[in-house]
Amino acid sequence: MAAKMGSLREKLLSMRGGSEINFDDIESLEDRINCRCSYRCLVDGIVSSWQQLQDMVTKAVEMGRSDHRKIIFSVKMGLALMLISFLIYLKESLKEFSRYSVWAIITVVVVFEFSIGATLSKGFNRAVGTLSAGGLGLGMAHLSQLAGEWEEAFIIISIFSTGFFVTYIKLYPTMKPYEYGFRVFLLTYVIVMVSGNRTREFIQTAVTRFLFIALGASVGFGINLLIYPIWAGEDLHNLVVKNFMGVATSLEGCVNGYLNCIEYERIPSKILTYEAYDDPCYNGYRAAVQSTSQEDALLGFAIWEPPHGPYRGFRYPWKNYVKVSGSLRHCAFMVMALHGCILSEIQAPPERRQVFFNELRRVGIEGAKVLRELGGKVKRMEKLSPVDILCEVQEAAEDLQNKIDRKSFILVNSESWEIGNRATKVHRDGQLEDLIDFDYDEKRVLEHKSRSEAVLDLRSLPSSGAWDSEKPSPTGAASPLQVEKQMFWSAGISALNGQIMESSKTYESASALSLATFVSLLIEFVARLQNLVDAFEELSIKANYKEPNIEQVEEQNGIFSRLHSKLTKQ
Amino acid sequence: MAAKMGSLREKLLSMRGGSEINFDDIESLEDRINCRCSYRCLVDGIVSSWQQLQDMVTKAVEMGRSDHRKIIFSVKMGLALMLISFLIYLKESLKEFSRYSVWAIITVVVVFEFSIGATLSKGFNRAVGTLSAGGLGLGMAHLSQLAGEWEEAFIIISIFSTGFFVTYIKLYPTMKPYEYGFRVFLLTYVIVMVSGNRTREFIQTAVTRFLFIALGASVGFGINLLIYPIWAGEDLHNLVVKNFMGVATSLEGCVNGYLNCIEYERIPSKILTYEAYDDPCYNGYRAAVQSTSQEDALLGFAIWEPPHGPYRGFRYPWKNYVKVSGSLRHCAFMVMALHGCILSEIQAPPERRQVFFNELRRVGIEGAKVLRELGGKVKRMEKLSPVDILCEVQEAAEDLQNKIDRKSFILVNSESWEIGNRATKVHRDGQLEDLIDFDYDEKRVLEHKSRSEAVLDLRSLPSSGAWDSEKPSPTGAASPLQVEKQMFWSAGISALNGQIMESSKTYESASALSLATFVSLLIEFVARLQNLVDAFEELSIKANYKEPNIEQVEEQNGIFSRLHSKLTKQ
Repeated sequence: MAAKMGSLREKLLSMRGGSEINFDDIESLEDRINCRCSYRCLVDGIVSSWQQLQDMVTKAVEMGRSDHRKIIFSVKMGLALMLISFLIYLKESLKEFSRYSVWAIITVVVVFEFSIGATLSKGFNRAVGTLSAGGLGLGMAHLSQLAGEWEEAFIIISIFSTGFFVTYIKLYPTMKPYEYGFRVFLLTYVIVMVSGNRTREFIQTAVTRFLFIALGASVGFGINLLIYPIWAGEDLHNLVVKNFMGVATSLEGCVNGYLNCIEYERIPSKILTYEAYDDPCYNGYRAAVQSTSQEDALLGFAIWEPPHGPYRGFRYPWKNYVKVSGSLRHCAFMVMALHGCILSEIQAPPERRQVFFNELRRVGIEGAKVLRELGGKVKRMEKLSPVDILCEVQEAAEDLQNKIDRKSFILVNSESWEIGNRATKVHRDGQLEDLIDFDYDEKRVLEHKSRSEAVLDLRSLPSSGAWDSEKPSPTGAASPLQVEKQMFWSAGISALNGQIMESSKTYESASALSLATFVSLLIEFVARLQNLVDAFEELSIKANYKEPNIEQVEEQNGIFSRLHSKLTKQ
Repeated sequence: MAAKMGSLREKLLSMRGGSEINFDDIESLEDRINCRCSYRCLVDGIVSSWQQLQDMVTKAVEMGRSDHRKIIFSVKMGLALMLISFLIYLKESLKEFSRYSVWAIITVVVVFEFSIGATLSKGFNRAVGTLSAGGLGLGMAHLSQLAGEWEEAFIIISIFSTGFFVTYIKLYPTMKPYEYGFRVFLLTYVIVMVSGNRTREFIQTAVTRFLFIALGASVGFGINLLIYPIWAGEDLHNLVVKNFMGVATSLEGCVNGYLNCIEYERIPSKILTYEAYDDPCYNGYRAAVQSTSQEDALLGFAIWEPPHGPYRGFRYPWKNYVKVSGSLRHCAFMVMALHGCILSEIQAPPERRQVFFNELRRVGIEGAKVLRELGGKVKRMEKLSPVDILCEVQEAAEDLQNKIDRKSFILVNSESWEIGNRATKVHRDGQLEDLIDFDYDEKRVLEHKSRSEAVLDLRSLPSSGAWDSEKPSPTGAASPLQVEKQMFWSAGISALNGQIMESSKTYESASALSLATFVSLLIEFVARLQNLVDAFEELSIKANYKEPNIEQVEEQNGIFSRLHSKLTKQ
């Protein structure tokens, strides 16, 4: 019994012994180093690399199937290169320009990016960098001629100072999107200064280079823009929709998992270190939280794209997509905290969760429904219908709060209050005469409770046994290091029997509070939805989304009138 | 009264009217468009751009002062470019190679990255890409000669197919670090095929290009490696330390802010959409959560770096730094959830928070101390001392839990239980005869409570008025859209006076539960610290951190013995 209590107390405030971080990696590393390159190793290596190759081919084919744009882009790249080499062959007569043809190839390879926005932004950077550096180079070269015999020194010093200033400006944080432009500037400037100086053909060098770059750019832009263009804006749009669906799945997963008392036997170390992990509950919100840098990159490209497809109008509000996604993230943090309740060592007893089963489930379902509906509306580019989208989820949250309000005694251990505390002390001291008094107290409380429609005498239920048995005993499975740590704790704190008793009660109380936390976080999630809806409305107005389908409105009006009649009936 | 209750209910489950998202942006945009380009506009434009330029210069100087590595790097870049142009001048006699000199310049500009790891990784990509493409190009060119009159067609088709396959493989997610290598491969292959075919000087083209690239690379590497090298690994190390300090500041800020009942009058919309915002409480954890992509990038470079400075040993465990940071992030999510309690509309009354003031503050302080100590240990590269670092914070958390256990009646509204509920019904019906009965009930409860050492009759305290007055009434400040939404709600739900009464009670109950949530999250934060300590220990062993200072151990032993004596006294 003492051991069990001890394990409870360790659980109460203790390590996740289940963490998969271990020291096996070191050993396997040493094994690998020790493996001498014998013949067998070589054969094994060939076999395994053949298998890896096969795997890679399978995965590559899979990638093409799941996103055919990647195949199309590769074909486009091949076409562009083919076209530019064909053009260079055609111009074979102009032998003297052959040395510049390389610039056309470089331009095609460098500028050809996956999305149109990236291509245009890189092309712009390249054009501005080349032109301004060309201009500056020409000016400086003329100046250098004035320097007479110090010409070369002048040129080298100008290269140094240009290199210094351009690099320094490039490192300035807000200049990051133009990093490529600065690089091209530097490159062009140095080339113009060096080669120009040698041949005294500044103008020719600059103009020919520019013409070939223009040729490469037009081939690159032409093929990338005209044949099945891939838009960064569309990617951003789809990413936001995907985030909505992911968070909805996570929310549902968390609420259902919590109600069905799903537990991780060992919390995967990838979750503990916030790495990608294949768990739908975790993946959904993680993807939404992690997508910031991807969104920023796509936003940076999308603003370069001309109006296209459904994204009509210049100055399309791409920023608002990121804003909506940010608001969604603000909600996702609550889902993350809900998942934290499932990951936690301290868990509310299943029986207590059951009390709020219907209400919790409804909030979960309605919340996910709102997220999916908003995601769908973003996808279909549709405005909100006149009926408040949050109506049902707010009602559900309110029902939950009301039920909590009526049954909040489930969330705390009333036994442990000063009332109960006294009784425990009595019990410990073994003086039985006062117990009668306690019994009377208890009777009164139960008498009160019996007046309500649903009485749950929780004290008679087995306390938290259900999931104790599933988990391996921490002391059994722990590493020597952990055992040592626990021993310090046990020695210091589990010294007195009475304290163990108290600790078990503390555990119970903590576990009951965990349910309160879950409920509270879920309600906060619902509260945050309004912010999301506001952000969506701003987007829908700025992006000029279409009015929702008439049929759908009618359907929702049906819900409206149904709700209204339900409310007036009450 | 009804209005106030209405506002409470709106708060209970409602929008954050304080969101700064508004539609003024659209108007200001139109204003800007309407501003015709008159003379005054032009002058204004020049003045403002002059001011912007001045600002930029100030900021640029500031940047150099705060991180002098940026100045050094810029100087290095200038030096490298100067050196390479000087070398090209020296070789002026070899006129026939002048056309290839451009490759040396390109290589320097392209390969010269901020950190050594990035430089080496890019150099490796460039070398492998150039060499393999050169080899393949030579082979294919020889093959093409066999094709006779179809030679050009063969070359163009081979360019297409190479372009297709290389681009397709490049798009494969795990190939992302080698993206640059694939690009260089493609570039070199096409150049070799096209120019080689024209001049029939395959070998010369390839070898000369390679020699110039090697020249550029050796200048770039030489200067970047030999003069004040900037290490990505060091950046990663410092980033992890910074994250520790940030989360510690956030934790302290959240706990103190909560205890001092600091509230946002208007929650900044940047927090609601998870953008960067200058709030120490928010900034600390946001930086830690956001740093994933930066860490991944630095890790990708750090593994390329040779042993240097304090990071001795090949295969230095850089991955473990990222793992520690991931575990820290897992803790930071709890701090984020704690901050969510401050952001929430539904707040616990200040009086109730005061009850747990000392315990909450102690957990906050001890938690931040642990984070700072771990951060300091990472910074100093020191192992953990034999004393359990979590000892004090776990004790503090336990004290908090014990206090919660004794006083959990503060976390719920016992009034609202079935006992209280009945009384409300009675009150509403106006039948006074039963009130005596209720009074008797209440007396009994108070009688029980009076036996404890600290009785708090919370019902006599002003309920949640303190922060009501600060906030503008939502109906007063809300936009027409929001009023409309609220009206639907009010019409449906605030219809009955009794329901308003209930709603106010629901609010009180929710606000009390909010305190439970805060406490529960804080305890979960403490529980997650063990995982962080485990990750740190793994790092400290793998990275062979030094043993802690003897003086410090003695000092900590002092704490140990003090603690031990304290515990045995108990």
